[in-house]
Amino acid sequence: MSEPVQPSRLSVNQETVKQWSLPELAEGCAKEGIGAVGLWRAPVQEYGVERAARLMRDTGLTVTSLCRGGFLTDIEEASRARALDDNRAAVDEAAALGTDTLVLVSGGLPPGSKDLVGARERVADALAVLGPYAEERGVRLAIEPLHPMFASDRCVVSTLGQALDLAERFPAHQVGVVVDTYHVWWDDLAPAQIARAGQGGRLHAFQLADWITPLPAGVLLGRGQLGDGCVDFRAFRAAVDAAGHRGPIEVEIFNEGLWARDGGEVLRETAERFRAHA
Amino acid sequence: MSEPVQPSRLSVNQETVKQWSLPELAEGCAKEGIGAVGLWRAPVQEYGVERAARLMRDTGLTVTSLCRGGFLTDIEEASRARALDDNRAAVDEAAALGTDTLVLVSGGLPPGSKDLVGARERVADALAVLGPYAEERGVRLAIEPLHPMFASDRCVVSTLGQALDLAERFPAHQVGVVVDTYHVWWDDLAPAQIARAGQGGRLHAFQLADWITPLPAGVLLGRGQLGDGCVDFRAFRAAVDAAGHRGPIEVEIFNEGLWARDGGEVLRETAERFRAHA
Repeated sequence: MSEPVQPSRLSVNQETVKQWSLPELAEGCAKEGIGAVGLWRAPVQEYGVERAARLMRDTGLTVTSLCRGGFLTDIEEASRARALDDNRAAVDEAAALGTDTLVLVSGGLPPGSKDLVGARERVADALAVLGPYAEERGVRLAIEPLHPMFASDRCVVSTLGQALDLAERFPAHQVGVVVDTYHVWWDDLAPAQIARAGQGGRLHAFQLADWITPLPAGVLLGRGQLGDGCVDFRAFRAAVDAAGHRGPIEVEIFNEGLWARDGGEVLRETAERFRAHA
Repeated sequence: MSEPVQPSRLSVNQETVKQWSLPELAEGCAKEGIGAVGLWRAPVQEYGVERAARLMRDTGLTVTSLCRGGFLTDIEEASRARALDDNRAAVDEAAALGTDTLVLVSGGLPPGSKDLVGARERVADALAVLGPYAEERGVRLAIEPLHPMFASDRCVVSTLGQALDLAERFPAHQVGVVVDTYHVWWDDLAPAQIARAGQGGRLHAFQLADWITPLPAGVLLGRGQLGDGCVDFRAFRAAVDAAGHRGPIEVEIFNEGLWARDGGEVLRETAERFRAHA
């Protein structure tokens, strides 16, 4: 068993308290003594990227990652060009917010396609373009494997093994991976792949959410608060720590039950659960 | 590309036309020229095992598998004993029906447990008891890896790799695996594991269903008719054929839309889709 987690490693992804505006998030984190957050592009754009960056600086919050770029599996040339443009914008936004990590969700199969291998190759083609662009701006791309239940409609990269196979075609300071317990908890190969990511300097982000059932329709909003499900967070943190990750640990939970509650209460509970389980 | 499938390899799992009684299934298969079926324990028990066996013999139907034994992950001694008894009964039923293949679904995590490795070990302990029992009755146990979205509540064996790691601790004529496209279609390691299963003589059953989204709540009844989703069946059959499997190919679809339709129409469509896509 590893030692209890250092509370200061907690970063709260803003989707966990989606009911909050950015200023509410900043104020809530200050109250709870939380020094880091993960942000999402849509609410940041809505608030204004520069304005959000200023808010983070003024309140002393570290931005540990920006979610998300990606969706790079389209076949048609015009859609591919649009996706690349959008990802360049995401890199710019990450740089403006002062985070070095842009999370990428690969994208699913194009309509009518059954070709997972081809789709993964198109992701690689896009990384070859985006990696150098990101490097110039001090941003690392972090491929997030999503649970295999999202393989067709959201992310053709389903395991850490696949994510590393992709990432290792590029320099580690350009492309790495995200370890999100919700997506990889079931995989007996995950511990070895976490070690592989660490050895290669590619473990760019570590995120926590618990696995609970029954899954809701569409399965996107089925994540559980830490401790409500069956993920062994302590074991994952031990593996990630052993792989040399010393950075923040983001809690990212999409759950309508949490969003319906008072944000301050959810944030306090999340910090408590983090100390108890992570 | 492989050759079109031999139509005679089609076996229709009775859950695909769950709206039908066993005599309706037998009659429907006769009409469509389908010579093989996969059966489930509950409807067979309800009809009577001996009576079902007689019906299959009298109508000349081959039973390609019985679903399902398993649920071997309980910790408590009394529950484990009950599970073993139930699996011995399942073996007896398979033997009575004249099928050599009993499909096993391992079971999920016991309430409160986060220990996937321990749960898989308890499955192995049970296989050590059930394998010889099955062998004496001419039945092979076939471990079915279920999609990782079922890992917590239904089946701690999520990949063909894990299933073979378990199976290979026992003689191949006692324990093998099921390749069900619905569960493994997303896995880039599946083709190599199919070859491994073939080399070891452990590819005991091959089942087809398509992957469609959005998934319904609970995700159990989300399977698609062949051709409605994104599974490349031809590629899977090529891999399975190359691994030396010459046996039946079962179509097993849990889908309330199919169950709401006329059984004869669904059976005809299934046979057509099988010829077009398998």
